[in-house]
Amino acid sequence: MRAATIREKEIVVEEHPDPVAGTGEVLVRVHAAGLNGADMMQRRGLYPAPPGSPQEIPGMELAGEVVSCGDGVERFAPGARVMAIIGGGAQAELAVVHERLLTPVPESLGWAAAGGLPEVFTTAHDAIFSQAQLLAGERLLVHGGAGGVGTAAIQLGRAAGAEVTATVRNAELREQVAELGARVIPCEGFAEHGPFDVILELVGAPNMPENLNALATGGRIVVIGVGAGAKAELNLLALMGKRARIHGSTLRARPLEEKALIARRLEREVLPLFERGLVRVPLADTFPLERAADAYERFAAGGKLGKVVLEL
Amino acid sequence: MRAATIREKEIVVEEHPDPVAGTGEVLVRVHAAGLNGADMMQRRGLYPAPPGSPQEIPGMELAGEVVSCGDGVERFAPGARVMAIIGGGAQAELAVVHERLLTPVPESLGWAAAGGLPEVFTTAHDAIFSQAQLLAGERLLVHGGAGGVGTAAIQLGRAAGAEVTATVRNAELREQVAELGARVIPCEGFAEHGPFDVILELVGAPNMPENLNALATGGRIVVIGVGAGAKAELNLLALMGKRARIHGSTLRARPLEEKALIARRLEREVLPLFERGLVRVPLADTFPLERAADAYERFAAGGKLGKVVLEL
Repeated sequence: MRAATIREKEIVVEEHPDPVAGTGEVLVRVHAAGLNGADMMQRRGLYPAPPGSPQEIPGMELAGEVVSCGDGVERFAPGARVMAIIGGGAQAELAVVHERLLTPVPESLGWAAAGGLPEVFTTAHDAIFSQAQLLAGERLLVHGGAGGVGTAAIQLGRAAGAEVTATVRNAELREQVAELGARVIPCEGFAEHGPFDVILELVGAPNMPENLNALATGGRIVVIGVGAGAKAELNLLALMGKRARIHGSTLRARPLEEKALIARRLEREVLPLFERGLVRVPLADTFPLERAADAYERFAAGGKLGKVVLEL
Repeated sequence: MRAATIREKEIVVEEHPDPVAGTGEVLVRVHAAGLNGADMMQRRGLYPAPPGSPQEIPGMELAGEVVSCGDGVERFAPGARVMAIIGGGAQAELAVVHERLLTPVPESLGWAAAGGLPEVFTTAHDAIFSQAQLLAGERLLVHGGAGGVGTAAIQLGRAAGAEVTATVRNAELREQVAELGARVIPCEGFAEHGPFDVILELVGAPNMPENLNALATGGRIVVIGVGAGAKAELNLLALMGKRARIHGSTLRARPLEEKALIARRLEREVLPLFERGLVRVPLADTFPLERAADAYERFAAGGKLGKVVLEL
């Protein structure tokens, strides 16, 4: 099979041996595989794939068709349309996935949208619901509302009855973010637009003191990205006075059973929203596998709304 | 009635008008009222009682007998043995308490123990169970294990099937803390004795970086005291990597309905442990009301294990 491959911090497309489905695993013919921030870090050698995942072939999400099933597979048969988050190796013609990590692809979704769905919608859903326990009627602030996770969080928060506000650094993208259902505010002085019950923090340490100021009593901050810095200052007396909590979360390092539970929640709580047309996968651009290097450049350049996806 | 009274940052005992029970309230003849760290701060003018509570008469917990009931009181009748956390005014011969904040006093408890129970056991229970959701089999670290909340947390953690470790600064108290059911370790280098699933932080900012190092994957830190400083440094990447969370909590500022729910949890989840002899209120010293100033000196001097309580 051909696959995107990391060679000395560059992306090339090379031939690799076909993977083989083991017990409980499914071999998937990949039709689309989204790019994510973590791929950019992995290309630079900063974020290795977890043990057991291909180290050279990037890609953490995919959508495709089941080709064959290993022993003991119960949920899927050849031909089924499936998608998943995986530890690595998604940006390839073939990938092996444990069946408990797969979900069906809603009928209304094309391959490109399905290939760009799992990572950002799972990350956003886990952060704002499983971690922060956002409720209808609450006020959600999404930092980085134009990013992949940001656009997913805005739509999920809105579909769940929250009032959603988003910061967007790039002024050209503000209108598109507003169309997703958020009140868009500038990054500077965001606390003036609060208070907020839940804050999704994708930027990192510099926002943290103002996040705490912007938080309502009983509020929750979920930190899932620290691109702008990891060392934050935290006023514990303010945290106590607001009876607030701060969650840190990441998906990739979790054990199989937790990832499988997360896939079930995606299936039960998020995919029906796609079927009902309440949420969608914004697509910035798609590239054929052979142009994987261009896709990475497109992702890294920023200034886009929505996903960059490889089509195969 | 006579009551401990704050006059220019000193404690005196003065005559005050008797309080009157309003609708839903109960007049209590106070038999015992514990001292707490917050009283020390209030005496120095740093922690005013919430609106609606007596400002000059300190005291946040009491045990006593119901004297009379205001309109609409349903749960208690004159003569009932009761105890409660209140916003202020507990260190007096008489106090008025909303009936939903009162709990019965277990038969086996004397007045001094009952008067020193509510604040520390409620604070510890709310922090480690309602906030951090400590489970049987987990590992709990209690900072300041010789303090009032510390001794309560150790016993509650142990009764719930957790493995409890405590830091104790004063070497003379370590054996007594160990007798409560904790493995006692020094404050310096405590992370070497981890990892811990839940850390109860009563000391403040200086412990926070090491707390995060000492935390297990999925661990929770609950901050309920910042005597040693409020400005903490927080490594967000470590928080993410451990999928950890940090809670800040305080009881005094909560609305009546939350305090009433907390009293119900004390009644249902903590008082049965007293009845079964699994936990107790360690008493350091008791003083008659007229010696309230001495009681405050005793509390402030430290070096004690357990509660300082006024008896009336």
